[in-house]
Amino acid sequence: MKDKILKKDAVIGIIGLGYVGVPLAIRFSDEGFKVIGFDVNPNQVSVMNQGKSPFKHIDDEAIAGMISTGFEGTGDYSRISQVDAIIICVPTPLKSGNEPDLSFIEGTLEAMRPYLRAGQVLSLESTTWPGTTREVIQPFIEDAGFTIGEDFFLVFSPEREDPGNEKFTVRTIPKVVGGVTEKCLEIGQHIYSAIVDRVVPVSSTDAAEMVKLLENIHRSVNIGLVNELKTVTDPMGLNIFEIVNAAATKPFGFTPYYPGPGVGGHCIPIDPFYLTWKAHQFGVHTRFIELAGEINSAMPKYVVSKLIEGLNDQGKAIRNSKILALGIAYKSDVDDVRESPSVEVMELVRKWGGDVHYADPNVATFPAMRKHEFDLVATELTPETVSSFDAVILLTVHKGIDYQMIEEHAQLIIDTRGKFDASQDKVVAA
Amino acid sequence: MKDKILKKDAVIGIIGLGYVGVPLAIRFSDEGFKVIGFDVNPNQVSVMNQGKSPFKHIDDEAIAGMISTGFEGTGDYSRISQVDAIIICVPTPLKSGNEPDLSFIEGTLEAMRPYLRAGQVLSLESTTWPGTTREVIQPFIEDAGFTIGEDFFLVFSPEREDPGNEKFTVRTIPKVVGGVTEKCLEIGQHIYSAIVDRVVPVSSTDAAEMVKLLENIHRSVNIGLVNELKTVTDPMGLNIFEIVNAAATKPFGFTPYYPGPGVGGHCIPIDPFYLTWKAHQFGVHTRFIELAGEINSAMPKYVVSKLIEGLNDQGKAIRNSKILALGIAYKSDVDDVRESPSVEVMELVRKWGGDVHYADPNVATFPAMRKHEFDLVATELTPETVSSFDAVILLTVHKGIDYQMIEEHAQLIIDTRGKFDASQDKVVAA
Repeated sequence: MKDKILKKDAVIGIIGLGYVGVPLAIRFSDEGFKVIGFDVNPNQVSVMNQGKSPFKHIDDEAIAGMISTGFEGTGDYSRISQVDAIIICVPTPLKSGNEPDLSFIEGTLEAMRPYLRAGQVLSLESTTWPGTTREVIQPFIEDAGFTIGEDFFLVFSPEREDPGNEKFTVRTIPKVVGGVTEKCLEIGQHIYSAIVDRVVPVSSTDAAEMVKLLENIHRSVNIGLVNELKTVTDPMGLNIFEIVNAAATKPFGFTPYYPGPGVGGHCIPIDPFYLTWKAHQFGVHTRFIELAGEINSAMPKYVVSKLIEGLNDQGKAIRNSKILALGIAYKSDVDDVRESPSVEVMELVRKWGGDVHYADPNVATFPAMRKHEFDLVATELTPETVSSFDAVILLTVHKGIDYQMIEEHAQLIIDTRGKFDASQDKVVAA
Repeated sequence: MKDKILKKDAVIGIIGLGYVGVPLAIRFSDEGFKVIGFDVNPNQVSVMNQGKSPFKHIDDEAIAGMISTGFEGTGDYSRISQVDAIIICVPTPLKSGNEPDLSFIEGTLEAMRPYLRAGQVLSLESTTWPGTTREVIQPFIEDAGFTIGEDFFLVFSPEREDPGNEKFTVRTIPKVVGGVTEKCLEIGQHIYSAIVDRVVPVSSTDAAEMVKLLENIHRSVNIGLVNELKTVTDPMGLNIFEIVNAAATKPFGFTPYYPGPGVGGHCIPIDPFYLTWKAHQFGVHTRFIELAGEINSAMPKYVVSKLIEGLNDQGKAIRNSKILALGIAYKSDVDDVRESPSVEVMELVRKWGGDVHYADPNVATFPAMRKHEFDLVATELTPETVSSFDAVILLTVHKGIDYQMIEEHAQLIIDTRGKFDASQDKVVAA
């Protein structure tokens, strides 16, 4: 296997052509590996096989380049037998009650089962609780007739993908790897060393799983803290953005986090609860995670309370007011609205009887979502449209929005991002 | 005033010759200003007037140098009339019930009152709640017959001193300044620009006060989080230090904080509660601060529970065991034991009937403390002494300790700092 990797003869199978799998497939292709991408969604496979990117933040050229060096997308899991390395990058969401939902991993394992063969290495990249690889994947592989560390190798290597981050790439982000056995770890290190500048070995798959959770718990808690502090400094007449920016001038011991309308995306609102769930099995509690979850998920309501205040000052109610949600992706410069708190704000405004619209240069039509349905296309941002709304709620900042024009023409701005001049009467910090 | 500062003719009065005031006095002296240092403690004044440093982390030469350029320490507040700038660096502890204790500030104001004169600027550097300068200092100065912004100037500029930090100095740490009026801010900026590379003006004294609280709240919460996670990963058989170190390889979005036996010193355990207290006046709550306080202050008990476990495995109890607390200063390479969690651990061990001793290269004799009394001198660390203890509890890591010798000779090590090889039976992670 080591030779195959060094000679780039190893065939790489990436399961899950999403935000994690696609950049990883590109990286392996760039290094000269033959990559087969597996996805249960035929549309995703077909788009990519046409050399097109399924994501705004990844260029078509990157996909086309990968195709030209042999990449194939497929939904046919029998082709698993053709790959040397199986890298699983499927979602790990939460069930109701904040329980881990491994159904995508389990579905992947079942689909692959008849096609596993001796000598393969399997790497799980999906975020999950410490113990998953040993408790879920290992017994499955053993049940399929293999011996881990002898004729099948098993590692966990958490993805650290940050969509839209222009400063770091798959290659320059160090990759943590833990193996079930020493031999597993060694092979895992060989594979990832082929595509990243630095591989960070840890003592176990459990440790590697926990590393990723810590990273996202750290973010969730720090965002939760500054969101709570926003609600504390606001009645004191202080601007939390000014405070954070000034604190950020301390050259040690402080890292700035900024408040917002909540947390979104497929990681921060979800991953920490994988630890919470597992901790309960050990009779211990994760109170910071739960507090952060509570505070962050209460933020949309806080934003709407500020909308109510702002409209009230003008003698208006939300009912029958026309409200524009500005920026509905979960973070800047992406097109992903999964778990976006902006959508929660839209839901609340609608519930209060507001006529809610949205504008987002990255989201032309409100997408199909499991929990939300809005029959809307993006409002074009012109002085006329902006001034026609009773209030504009800034939720996510994107490049390519003319904020000065909005500041000039909006009747009322509810600003969750500290983007507008809060000394104006019509700007309400939220 | 501006001219006086630029020509370095302004006389600087520093009130409180402690961890903050002394480095500040040195910095002004280094720039050629005449500095008068005020302190109510005659010993502190006398030590410094002899050209000696009251602190381990500050060299005698720095004090002697300051004396040679005109520094004088005094307890005579009538000399306030001789200074142009009054910089208050006195402690702001907590009363029982976690209420702010401004008695040192109030005592300073009362002592200075007869000697205030027109044209002076007063800068408060002591950490305090947002509003203190306006609510406490301003009325006092006005009551003394001055008009803020006209014949007396008032600013708040939080200290960012980090004793033992060799990477940053008073000069290279940016200094946040807020003024009661525009004119106050302008004068504050002139004064601090004379001694630091970068002054960061903020919109008000309240904002400047909040900046400092945010910095320390951020630390308290992040340390609390990793302390809680230690108690979660420990039963899972994971080493929290390995996890944090691996997560720290992520080049964005993560900052490592390490667990320990609690938090100590004069800032982190105290400052956050100034905001908690003030928040209650506005009917809002600071749940992260309270959770961090609860978890961090429970750490000494956690450490002792690990001592109990470790001794129990050897068939021993704390009662009648000889226990060594290794490192009692509140952090590495300082000699300050104020609020040190190590001392809490010592108290608990004594309460459980243990024969407790300590070793710390920076603390030769257990100092007089308000809440703690141990009639002890530091145990010398030799193979014989180390092996004579039933357990060694590593609490604070200092340079100049031979950890390898301790690892070899200790019977049992309770390691709160991840310093020893935890795969050994005799090392218990705590």
